[in-house]
Amino acid sequence: MEMTAAYYEGNKQFTVKPLADLPPLEAGTVRLNVAYCGICGTDVHIYHGTMDQRVQIPQVIGHEVSGVVSEVGPEVTGFQVGEAVTVRPLQPGKATAFDNGYTHIGKNLKFIGIDTPGGMQASWVVPAYTLHKLPGGVSLKQAALIEPLAVACHDVRLSASKSGDRAVVLGGGPIGVLVALVARHQGAEVLVSEVNPHRLELIQSLGFETVNPMVENVVDRVAQFTADAMADVVFEVSGVAAAVDTMTQLLRVRGRAVMVAIHGQPKPVRLFDFFWKELQLVGARVYEPEDFEMAIALVDSGKLPLTRIITEVLPLTDIQQAFERIDDNPSGMKYLLHCNEQIQ
Amino acid sequence: MEMTAAYYEGNKQFTVKPLADLPPLEAGTVRLNVAYCGICGTDVHIYHGTMDQRVQIPQVIGHEVSGVVSEVGPEVTGFQVGEAVTVRPLQPGKATAFDNGYTHIGKNLKFIGIDTPGGMQASWVVPAYTLHKLPGGVSLKQAALIEPLAVACHDVRLSASKSGDRAVVLGGGPIGVLVALVARHQGAEVLVSEVNPHRLELIQSLGFETVNPMVENVVDRVAQFTADAMADVVFEVSGVAAAVDTMTQLLRVRGRAVMVAIHGQPKPVRLFDFFWKELQLVGARVYEPEDFEMAIALVDSGKLPLTRIITEVLPLTDIQQAFERIDDNPSGMKYLLHCNEQIQ
Ligand SMILES: NC(=O)c1ccc[n+]([C@@H]2O[C@H](COP(=O)([O-])OP(=O)(O)OC[C@H]3O[C@@H](n4cnc5c(N)ncnc54)[C@H](O)[C@@H]3O)[C@@H](O)[C@H]2O)c1
Ligand SMILES: NC(=O)c1ccc[n+]([C@@H]2O[C@H](COP(=O)([O-])OP(=O)(O)OC[C@H]3O[C@@H](n4cnc5c(N)ncnc54)[C@H](O)[C@@H]3O)[C@@H](O)[C@H]2O)c1
Ligand SMILES: [Zn+2]
Ligand SMILES: [Zn+2]
Repeated sequence: MEMTAAYYEGNKQFTVKPLADLPPLEAGTVRLNVAYCGICGTDVHIYHGTMDQRVQIPQVIGHEVSGVVSEVGPEVTGFQVGEAVTVRPLQPGKATAFDNGYTHIGKNLKFIGIDTPGGMQASWVVPAYTLHKLPGGVSLKQAALIEPLAVACHDVRLSASKSGDRAVVLGGGPIGVLVALVARHQGAEVLVSEVNPHRLELIQSLGFETVNPMVENVVDRVAQFTADAMADVVFEVSGVAAAVDTMTQLLRVRGRAVMVAIHGQPKPVRLFDFFWKELQLVGARVYEPEDFEMAIALVDSGKLPLTRIITEVLPLTDIQQAFERIDDNPSGMKYLLHCNEQIQ
Repeated sequence: MEMTAAYYEGNKQFTVKPLADLPPLEAGTVRLNVAYCGICGTDVHIYHGTMDQRVQIPQVIGHEVSGVVSEVGPEVTGFQVGEAVTVRPLQPGKATAFDNGYTHIGKNLKFIGIDTPGGMQASWVVPAYTLHKLPGGVSLKQAALIEPLAVACHDVRLSASKSGDRAVVLGGGPIGVLVALVARHQGAEVLVSEVNPHRLELIQSLGFETVNPMVENVVDRVAQFTADAMADVVFEVSGVAAAVDTMTQLLRVRGRAVMVAIHGQPKPVRLFDFFWKELQLVGARVYEPEDFEMAIALVDSGKLPLTRIITEVLPLTDIQQAFERIDDNPSGMKYLLHCNEQIQ
């Protein structure tokens, strides 16, 4: 079977080409045979051309990867050919005072798969420090969800949510649903707000209470859900102004809002509610190593219905159709590319 | 000397009348001879008529009080006639689940001096639980600043600021300056942003670095102040949209913004900065008992230049002139009313 790589060429086009001869590995790096690579909202933004200033066309993208070590470079210890791994796609770069010690979001951070070549190829080279080993028996298909699941673990961790808390998730896309699953796993009672009827159906079938802001008043629904106490935690995972306006109204005194969504433009916020109820807002971006470890443990436990979130798995050669299908189907959730047909 | 009380009559008018015969005290209450009562921005709002739906005209207002116990009601223990005290003007009311255990800002909270009669009178009855004793030798004039100083102590406490932190205070009115003083006392390096040249002069004379957003770019100034690390903490104490827009740009990774100002309307916030830098926003409202104790200790220590913030002390009979003067002089800071000429 020939190894291929998919290149984003700009203008909503991917080309799939045979991988050229593999160059020798640099010190500290590892080569993987990629099993599956998930398609993230960011990848769809790249496909739409809105990040052309950041990517280097033609570029292989993708950062939600499971795979198997195929070659270990010089000065790498602790990894063996054949081991199953996932990749934490962060390359911190030089630390600065601005970073405040948080290397996962430091000033010189490069995001692997956006700022550097990504995982939508059969064979991929990454720094060894980005790897997390998978426990034996973990499905490589589910392991492609570890990266977005680690986002959710990070969000729930930063929410400081405690068992018994009432949590509201605004936006039930892939990230919102993973946040809901992790929060529930940690003991929260979770209500998900979502406008897409198909996504609502999926979310309900996962056992969550839901509200559709097009149909019901979300503030009233949360009052009912919490017997008037209102929520301890709100996750803003929709990216829309209406949810930002609602967010603060759903919280009880000293409640916490977690900003997961990426709002490109400033949006009106009810700052009075922050003063009046002493609310907190916490921004959350990607993950730290412990979030990856937690995500791996969750996948290994088999306790989350992760396969329910996988809408479709397509071979890497069908990447163009995959992105077109995502555009055509806003009700779909997670699409995976199968990058090495030999590895299941 | 006749005892008087000042009544807000609506329409920017106060009347000063002799106090009627003092009724017998109810259980759990204490009567004070009020020494000084500071005039708060909220009192000015009441004077302007913007809170006429909340006050009960004619009403005595005022909540920044120092005084001396003149009578102790039934079932009150621990207080003696003649003791100097200050009042924490919060009447919690019945707790609700919404309050999350935070009685100082619970749903049924009444603010004494707004929702109930206040301290702009020679003799005042308050619940005994609102009293904090003053150490011997504390100036009653300075003690009238304990209430706003407790606001500042609360704000700095909720900021979680550590010694060595770089803090920026947006808005150098009475509350902003008190926040700056408390933050500096706790070891922070403080820069104050203010647009009023007279206030800027006062703030500089207190030894603070300053920036005037009308003259300089605040983001550049903070970069310079922090050698490009940017600030650990920003206090929003101005209440204006420009400061809200700036706020998030001044912080380093995982920095904290404290929302002290009361923003009546939603304002655009750079939510992207919250995500990108994992910022936190913390609302802060009034104080808890420990903040009052800290404010009292600070006044007692003599380490803060509090008298510099007192612009003028007027007799209670001149209350009308006092409020007119405040309107005429936006450069003034704290005005006190002397409510019992016998008590200095
Ligand atoms: N913080 C991070 O590190 C991080 C990582 C990944 C993604 N993100 C961001 O998280 C957000 C969600 O990602 P996703 O992949 O799930 O995106 P998505 O677009 O699939 O999900 C957003 C969901 O919000 C729903 N929605 C729209 N209007 C709504 C409303 N008024 N109320 C409730 N829901 C509404 C949409 O129907 C959609 O299902 C995006 O902004 C993405 O950029 C952040
Ligand atoms: N959280 C609480 O419990 C609490 C308690 C008291 C007061 N407050 C609020 O705190 C705020 C400050 O109170 P105050 O009495 O000091 O009010 P103030 O109006 O005297 O102070 C605000 C200051 O901000 C300055 N300012 C205006 N535009 C500015 C800009 N662009 N950048 C920087 N500064 C600017 C003004 O010149 C003024 O000096 C008010 O909103 C008040 O309602 C809150
Ligand atoms: Zn992603
Ligand atoms: Zn006040």
